[in-house]
Amino acid sequence: MNTFKPTAMLLLTLILIYSPDTHAKHIFTDLDGKFIKADSLTWVGKASPVKKTYHRVDTAIYNKMPQKIKSLFTNSAGIAIAFTTNSTSIAAKWSVKNGKGLPNVSDINSMGLDLYIKKEGTWRYAGIGRPEGSFSEKTIVTNMDTLTKECLIYLPTYDEVTSLEIGIDKSSFIIPSTSPFEGKYVIYGSSITQGASASRPGMAYPARMARATGLNFINLGLSGNGKMEAPVIEMLGDITCDAYIMDCIANPSPQEITERAPHAIRYLRKKHPETPIIFIQSIVRETGLFDEKARLVNQQQNEAIEHVFKELQKEQIPYLYLIKENYFLGIDHEGTIDGVHPNDLGFDRMIRVIQPAILSILNKK
Amino acid sequence: MNTFKPTAMLLLTLILIYSPDTHAKHIFTDLDGKFIKADSLTWVGKASPVKKTYHRVDTAIYNKMPQKIKSLFTNSAGIAIAFTTNSTSIAAKWSVKNGKGLPNVSDINSMGLDLYIKKEGTWRYAGIGRPEGSFSEKTIVTNMDTLTKECLIYLPTYDEVTSLEIGIDKSSFIIPSTSPFEGKYVIYGSSITQGASASRPGMAYPARMARATGLNFINLGLSGNGKMEAPVIEMLGDITCDAYIMDCIANPSPQEITERAPHAIRYLRKKHPETPIIFIQSIVRETGLFDEKARLVNQQQNEAIEHVFKELQKEQIPYLYLIKENYFLGIDHEGTIDGVHPNDLGFDRMIRVIQPAILSILNKK
Repeated sequence: MNTFKPTAMLLLTLILIYSPDTHAKHIFTDLDGKFIKADSLTWVGKASPVKKTYHRVDTAIYNKMPQKIKSLFTNSAGIAIAFTTNSTSIAAKWSVKNGKGLPNVSDINSMGLDLYIKKEGTWRYAGIGRPEGSFSEKTIVTNMDTLTKECLIYLPTYDEVTSLEIGIDKSSFIIPSTSPFEGKYVIYGSSITQGASASRPGMAYPARMARATGLNFINLGLSGNGKMEAPVIEMLGDITCDAYIMDCIANPSPQEITERAPHAIRYLRKKHPETPIIFIQSIVRETGLFDEKARLVNQQQNEAIEHVFKELQKEQIPYLYLIKENYFLGIDHEGTIDGVHPNDLGFDRMIRVIQPAILSILNKK
Repeated sequence: MNTFKPTAMLLLTLILIYSPDTHAKHIFTDLDGKFIKADSLTWVGKASPVKKTYHRVDTAIYNKMPQKIKSLFTNSAGIAIAFTTNSTSIAAKWSVKNGKGLPNVSDINSMGLDLYIKKEGTWRYAGIGRPEGSFSEKTIVTNMDTLTKECLIYLPTYDEVTSLEIGIDKSSFIIPSTSPFEGKYVIYGSSITQGASASRPGMAYPARMARATGLNFINLGLSGNGKMEAPVIEMLGDITCDAYIMDCIANPSPQEITERAPHAIRYLRKKHPETPIIFIQSIVRETGLFDEKARLVNQQQNEAIEHVFKELQKEQIPYLYLIKENYFLGIDHEGTIDGVHPNDLGFDRMIRVIQPAILSILNKK
């Protein structure tokens, strides 16, 4: 939790209130508001510093990565801004590049905002910024008391934010919070990691696990593209972190897993001799309940990573772990939106299995 | 379960295969398909016969209902078609009136299709029809074995279907199934009943409860409009059913509840002296976690219906029940998409509370 230092707070408040980016706007219920550029607040969920504020990875540096991957890293999945305010209303103005939804992801998740406020020591849902295409201006929550609150706004999971301003009551203060989560636990994966198909940005599983554990889980999910290509593994290797969580078995073919996973493991182990590398098998895809081919591919993917681990045993690579699929989505087959992507029910069940497994590994180190 | 009568089956198959509505189309993975008009299959989820096939209520008869409500009853929430086939692929061509999504409902739910197949005595998710605006033509599932299967396709929850054809392998048969659910349990309510914000049509709570219990729960949810207006209550009264489940406290104001609920109860009781009338309090809205006004309104709504029940005690109305809000959405505040509408996690928790309560009441009668 933040502890307040009144003097510093006052100073920051004055700077922010009178910054040229601030202006009043009548979108609040019963009072004028002012808007603050989000850039001046605390960034959460970034693996490393990024020039373009809302991107997850500086793709200009990693120009060998496939174009599609560079584009996906401009999506703000897992990125949040943290601030402290006594405003009774919180609003936002934000622009996104695409502003077009996906059939299997709610617009609130793909291009909306999701506010949590800390209460009695836990992060609690407080309101969403309901998107309206490429530019939105919305009140997220209103009619609150004037107590000082620690806030966290998750940004869109499936779009590129191009601007973001936070609105508060004219008479209130807003200051950057200290970073709310500890350490750095990178999760590299597929669309499932990126956030499909949670109902809102804060329901993506890395975000939920961060709030639940206090650990700084970083979302490096790449929709359809978590395939362990060498340039992406190099980029991961440049991140100094407390663990690599590799939820990247759903996208590559069984053959790609066999070919690429050994390199990924050896490369990361060489660059970071003691950082845990935790692979997670793919969820059992519900598309395979009746589609026999889909079932087979999914099964072969999970067999391929198991085989890689078996083969690597002779190299005695330390701090290397595999979390095996173990009814991640439950047993009633109601945990996905489309047979591939967990809905919030599926994610809840998945978290109940993988979070304790990850925590147990991290303590084991 | 359906039991097969080969002779009848063959006859129906021939009729359907050679009907003029059927034609081949190359959308299957590895074989030609043929399309059958859905009208010729078994309808599930209707409260009463409706001239316009895809509507829930014949709004031409109930023309005193507000226009918005008549429009909402054209949405196919809770309607499904049941059929039996040995096809290895199932496809669909369907048109919807609006074809535009909502920010807080996935397109798959609002205008897509959702297929379940019975396996080992339970309904299992099999595939979705991923919508693409107002007309879609999609394979829902493929690569299945050729065993005879009982299928159920849920229609869009938040759009009006204007045409629907089901595609199967050219060499396969398709026949109407017997109705898979027993009795008629009408659920009248708000957007939450209609299906916001489940991830797909089959995840709306009346549909989930029907599959789980085998009881025919009918979805008469009206987004934003479950307000117990007299003409709507009259329409409900014309339905002969096994229970009225009134999940209609979220939309009306506390004053409207006080004014309208007594009439609704007396009217339905008079027309159907022994049919259970089960009211359900509103979920505690998560918007009220920080928004004090929202919290108060929600609290007053639930107090209003409790007060109505208390007042009616002296009339000793039989078979009248109230299911009180009892952490319907759990305690972690992660059960909604937007503070108002449950996500699949919230629905799962809600069902765990209300389903046993409803079943217990129904046995009690």
